[in-house]
Amino acid sequence: MSDKFFQKPKGTADLLPAVQPIWQKINQIAQDVFGHRYRFGKIDTPLFENYEIFSRTSGDSSDVVSKEMYDFKDKGDRRMALRPEGTAGVVRAYVENKLYGPEYEKPVNLYYLESMFRYERPQAGRMREFHQVGVESFGSDSPYLDAQIIQMAIDFFKEFKLTDLVVKINSLGDDESRTAFRTALVDYLVGFQDQLSEDSKKRLQTNPMRILDSKDRNDQKVLLNAPHLLDYLNQDSKSRFQKVTSALDDFGIEYVIDDKLVRGLDYYNHTIFEIETSDPKLKSAATICGGGRYSGMVEDFGGPATPAIGFGIGLERLITLVGEVENQDLVDVYIVQTDHSVNAFANLLAKQLRERFHFGVLLDYTNRSMKSQFKSADRTQARYSIVVGEQEVSNKELTIKKMVDGSQKKVLLQQLKIEDFL
Amino acid sequence: MSDKFFQKPKGTADLLPAVQPIWQKINQIAQDVFGHRYRFGKIDTPLFENYEIFSRTSGDSSDVVSKEMYDFKDKGDRRMALRPEGTAGVVRAYVENKLYGPEYEKPVNLYYLESMFRYERPQAGRMREFHQVGVESFGSDSPYLDAQIIQMAIDFFKEFKLTDLVVKINSLGDDESRTAFRTALVDYLVGFQDQLSEDSKKRLQTNPMRILDSKDRNDQKVLLNAPHLLDYLNQDSKSRFQKVTSALDDFGIEYVIDDKLVRGLDYYNHTIFEIETSDPKLKSAATICGGGRYSGMVEDFGGPATPAIGFGIGLERLITLVGEVENQDLVDVYIVQTDHSVNAFANLLAKQLRERFHFGVLLDYTNRSMKSQFKSADRTQARYSIVVGEQEVSNKELTIKKMVDGSQKKVLLQQLKIEDFL
Repeated sequence: MSDKFFQKPKGTADLLPAVQPIWQKINQIAQDVFGHRYRFGKIDTPLFENYEIFSRTSGDSSDVVSKEMYDFKDKGDRRMALRPEGTAGVVRAYVENKLYGPEYEKPVNLYYLESMFRYERPQAGRMREFHQVGVESFGSDSPYLDAQIIQMAIDFFKEFKLTDLVVKINSLGDDESRTAFRTALVDYLVGFQDQLSEDSKKRLQTNPMRILDSKDRNDQKVLLNAPHLLDYLNQDSKSRFQKVTSALDDFGIEYVIDDKLVRGLDYYNHTIFEIETSDPKLKSAATICGGGRYSGMVEDFGGPATPAIGFGIGLERLITLVGEVENQDLVDVYIVQTDHSVNAFANLLAKQLRERFHFGVLLDYTNRSMKSQFKSADRTQARYSIVVGEQEVSNKELTIKKMVDGSQKKVLLQQLKIEDFL
Repeated sequence: MSDKFFQKPKGTADLLPAVQPIWQKINQIAQDVFGHRYRFGKIDTPLFENYEIFSRTSGDSSDVVSKEMYDFKDKGDRRMALRPEGTAGVVRAYVENKLYGPEYEKPVNLYYLESMFRYERPQAGRMREFHQVGVESFGSDSPYLDAQIIQMAIDFFKEFKLTDLVVKINSLGDDESRTAFRTALVDYLVGFQDQLSEDSKKRLQTNPMRILDSKDRNDQKVLLNAPHLLDYLNQDSKSRFQKVTSALDDFGIEYVIDDKLVRGLDYYNHTIFEIETSDPKLKSAATICGGGRYSGMVEDFGGPATPAIGFGIGLERLITLVGEVENQDLVDVYIVQTDHSVNAFANLLAKQLRERFHFGVLLDYTNRSMKSQFKSADRTQARYSIVVGEQEVSNKELTIKKMVDGSQKKVLLQQLKIEDFL
């Protein structure tokens, strides 16, 4: 086997035991905040879907679909793709499982915590297999729900003690408002066509609103005097957006209205938002959450007309911000064996301690010296050690040593009780 | 979009909120039994690996590799495969991350709980995307570890109240014993070559020991008088196997020695085992766990010679045995709104209840009638309801209704405390 096969694929990671506590914490907090407090039910969708599920929703011309998707033909010659994002699969599941039916509480609230896959150039915090937690809520167009959803994301981040959170928010308005703005924007940009980047020139034909997102210097200069989205909102859209921001005010959420925020998807309407942290640990502000309202997607998948809103949070980035988390689950007892003649007894003692007290028990299975077993007891931060030798086996009497202060007590095996380990 | 794209791929499942409690329970029990009690660290490996990782370990000629693997070329023209089983990725990670180094406690104990993928004909309890929990322990050849590993699997099943567990166990012995048996088996089978199934004829050349596994009637007739594995164990292998079974006796584990049990992999040696349940709920006994000792695999991946042992448990089958689990996490408060004029206040109240008490709070975002809101409060088994109307908004006084007995009390919003909900 040549060397390359010893390695994981580029852009993927092994999540070893040392990093598991932070993943466990993320799972718990998602379950507590989204699941318990906000009553969002967890959903897992298949890891791959029919290719068209993603190509339709993200758009054939998008980078995700054209360059970054892991697509393949299965053995039945069906074109499949590993999921590049979370929303499309959840919408497909919502429709296919008829969650719009009267037996389900509306809005139908779902969250997911899943691996996703994009064939991108790997760089710090950007992986080819990456993880997102996200939520989707189907069936309500209430502006108060928008505020609740944003609060929910903030509650999630607060559990990680992330500070200096700012919500950037904007409204695309309804179809009428969007169309009016789009026309005004194209009219304006056509006059500067020569000064635009190649990407933006293309987008002027396909998806002009994405030009507002451009990081290109020249594009940004041209955009300085471009028309403002919020000026094109009709009365309904304006009053709806006011309700959202006033609910954010009630909640005491810090936000800024960011007129340039558009987010790519054609399905978006009304509220769109991102959450930034400018935590002092960071060199510059980082976007840690993006989301918004969308409509039309459920219909496109064959369901009834359904307003929806959701957000996604990239977990690799969150982890770089939060840092490591210590393993809180320590060893209760380390059993030290004098030599291999007591292996059977030690093994049985371990079984009993696990069975009776649900203790975390470690013992050596490589017949190392007592000295090195005691080192292991220290290194694994065991609360207690018990030495097992010939004498202990014949007397059935154990010496329990408290590692923190070295204090010892003798107890007959038969009389061992959980209080001996307090 | 044509109809087929509305559907999940054949052989995959959406895990909707209603089935999440059992998955959550499986996660918790794996963490408690494997993680806490037995000190196995969790590991997640990438969902896909270089194709050769699996083709080498399972064997090019195996069904898994030749017919069932989801393999594909990535955009860099590298041949990848979705993992069809758990061990190969964990061994690759063990070697690549140098977990054999002196800074890690030996044996290195790992468990995984992951999706896997095989392109098989979908049938009851057999999915194309399926889930396994499994463990691998690297670095000890102690027979007592074998017993511990088997006990660990049983402890896992006991938490699900599975009854009538029987361990089927066998020993392949060391290399010398295996080779002696293999030769005797081939010598015997060659005499009956014409009566063997096509598959077994092939296997006579490639992997004769797998013929012992054959479900074919004629094969089974031929096998009746075949040589017995245990008769070919040399003294060391025999005495090792006796230590394993006598430790199982000490543990009080019910087991049968099954001379026909071989399990496919070339890497296996010494102890191999399966766990069956003949739970009265089942029509026939079901194998719910398989595992054994193996060696050579770590070396094949470029690591040092390392004895290893592990097992895998299919979770879809476990779930069909265990059945549904009820969601224990109930709604604490359902906020009922008289009409849309109180939406803002109700939304803020929900925020405060979540923030101050970490309550699970539900409220309507679709402006339904009070009657249908109360129905929802019943249906979601909310512990308390609070009606919010004009009066409550102006007085800032709330009426808290205990749903189970209809008893009510009035509390000023400012003075609300957790004791009001006991």
